[in-house]
Amino acid sequence: MNAETLLRTVIDTIPAPDASWEERAWARLDSLTKPPRSLGYLEDVAQRLAVLQRTEKPSVRRKAIVLMAGDHGVTAQGVSPYPSEVTAQMVANIAAGGAAINQLAKHAGAQVLLVDVGVANPLPNAYGVVRARVADGTADMSQGPAMTRDETLSAIRVGIEEVAALAEEGLDLVGTGEMGIGNTTASAAITSVLTCVDSADVVGPGAGLDDEGIRHKIDVVRRAIEVNIPDPLDALDTLMKVGGLEIAGIVGVVLGAASLGIPVVSDGYISGAAALVALHMAPAIRPWLFASHRSAEPGHAVVLEALGVRPVLQLDMRLGEGTGAALAMELMDAACAVMSGMATFAEAGVAERED
Amino acid sequence: MNAETLLRTVIDTIPAPDASWEERAWARLDSLTKPPRSLGYLEDVAQRLAVLQRTEKPSVRRKAIVLMAGDHGVTAQGVSPYPSEVTAQMVANIAAGGAAINQLAKHAGAQVLLVDVGVANPLPNAYGVVRARVADGTADMSQGPAMTRDETLSAIRVGIEEVAALAEEGLDLVGTGEMGIGNTTASAAITSVLTCVDSADVVGPGAGLDDEGIRHKIDVVRRAIEVNIPDPLDALDTLMKVGGLEIAGIVGVVLGAASLGIPVVSDGYISGAAALVALHMAPAIRPWLFASHRSAEPGHAVVLEALGVRPVLQLDMRLGEGTGAALAMELMDAACAVMSGMATFAEAGVAERED
Repeated sequence: MNAETLLRTVIDTIPAPDASWEERAWARLDSLTKPPRSLGYLEDVAQRLAVLQRTEKPSVRRKAIVLMAGDHGVTAQGVSPYPSEVTAQMVANIAAGGAAINQLAKHAGAQVLLVDVGVANPLPNAYGVVRARVADGTADMSQGPAMTRDETLSAIRVGIEEVAALAEEGLDLVGTGEMGIGNTTASAAITSVLTCVDSADVVGPGAGLDDEGIRHKIDVVRRAIEVNIPDPLDALDTLMKVGGLEIAGIVGVVLGAASLGIPVVSDGYISGAAALVALHMAPAIRPWLFASHRSAEPGHAVVLEALGVRPVLQLDMRLGEGTGAALAMELMDAACAVMSGMATFAEAGVAERED
Repeated sequence: MNAETLLRTVIDTIPAPDASWEERAWARLDSLTKPPRSLGYLEDVAQRLAVLQRTEKPSVRRKAIVLMAGDHGVTAQGVSPYPSEVTAQMVANIAAGGAAINQLAKHAGAQVLLVDVGVANPLPNAYGVVRARVADGTADMSQGPAMTRDETLSAIRVGIEEVAALAEEGLDLVGTGEMGIGNTTASAAITSVLTCVDSADVVGPGAGLDDEGIRHKIDVVRRAIEVNIPDPLDALDTLMKVGGLEIAGIVGVVLGAASLGIPVVSDGYISGAAALVALHMAPAIRPWLFASHRSAEPGHAVVLEALGVRPVLQLDMRLGEGTGAALAMELMDAACAVMSGMATFAEAGVAERED
């Protein structure tokens, strides 16, 4: 099956959750020994997972973060305080277990699947990295399209196939993550196009730009949109012109997971922009999508609004790699523990409310 | 040592953190392979714990939730949709492992120490409950003082002694929690007095009152304050007149932990009101105090503002029992894992920023 046919097939096979579980899940939660809904958003998370898993006792035991790495030609425009070489260096660091995501995924009991879908530089070592490089980074989107259509579809395919491979071994929850110097610039361009919000409102400091750097980055994003004229009604066109290989990879992970009936927890701004592309391609993913946190990048709030999902955490994080997704997984796991492990009023012999 | 002397001694022995670790902790965090401060508030938490533990590699491995249970005479005024009997029933449920806190503490790797400091009704079974009952619940504060001075001091002593006993076996982090039908009413009265905010702004639905119930509860809180005239400059007087036995117990836990150099993570509204009393008694506790979450009870935001600590979570929870503290412990633990386990730029051979 070619990449485009695969994408269409995946989109067409995303299941709708079984609505008959909606009330049943709430009934179970309300029967537990606590004032109804007193665990707030934790109960919403538990309820959604129960519906998606069609069970009164949901569980997200088998967890993975799929971390897509790729480079961005637009770094030639000076949009990041870090050089492009850092992408490959950080991939090596993640492969060696030294990055934030390694600690947080381990803490959450999640596996990290690290995928080179488009790093520009050679990787110093091969161990622990899935080699699925579609291209050596994207072209400079401020001069023309970031990717060809084939590259875009191939990178999406990588995401679809990697999540499918994980699912074969058993997967209850997948988190998205990325590494790619310059990718907040691409995410800002995607967000600006798909939400019709001005670049100035979706560009932030990324890995640490000062005010002057941010002004320049806003100009670069504007130029990329002016040069490419991405079609806001065509998410694939937008992704191809102003996106990135790792972003396309995440689009594939989100679509692939949803098509397999596996909940997805989205990380920060870049993962959110990818989820937004996926949502535009396939509105049916929405019930399968969770948002881990609201990052410090101003554009992420715009993305979350467009996705229509409430983040679990607000910790002003802006690291990426899937770090927010890993932290949120712990709370999602805790939500399942509550729903699956608590006693009911009847079991515990506790009086219910008097009215 | 009598209870009052013990309290004075504890207050006088709260250590100041070693300020020489402030910069050293940040230097370690900034040397790790991530953009500086890109983990946002998670880094603030890690930095604070590193300072308190005087180490570059903090750890909160040994964790406990001290859950104080007590009843409130003011329930006679119809301030809760649940009858007072539910306190004893829920204590039994917690002792049997059926409550939300059991699941969440287990998930966080924290022990639950359940203390009957003033439940009104007999406990159906004895197993797993520390028997330290000072009185069979408080008196109705809308008619006169909730407690005598002796009862108040005795309940504080219970908290001091229980946390000291835990510390002897090794304790890196203690969370507060409570069970007591009617205790949001007492917490609202304490908060109103100590922050000079009108009752209407600190009374909420508690375990689930409707609007009419809330209006009535506001009146009851006002009456309790009018009848008792607690001295806003005397936190012990306020606690005695409009507090509760389990709230006094938590005051003891907070003061006792700080005096032993053990960080405390406060749960929701009731625990927050207790922490506020402790802070008024001993401003030196502030560096030792963490706030787990901002609850759905409107008064809790007022308390957090007065405490001057940012909560880790905002999940609209309003359950109590220490559930917010248990969830926050997981993130505090994760913050330690990041700070203690990540590679530095030098170790990983990753380039730092270009400016």
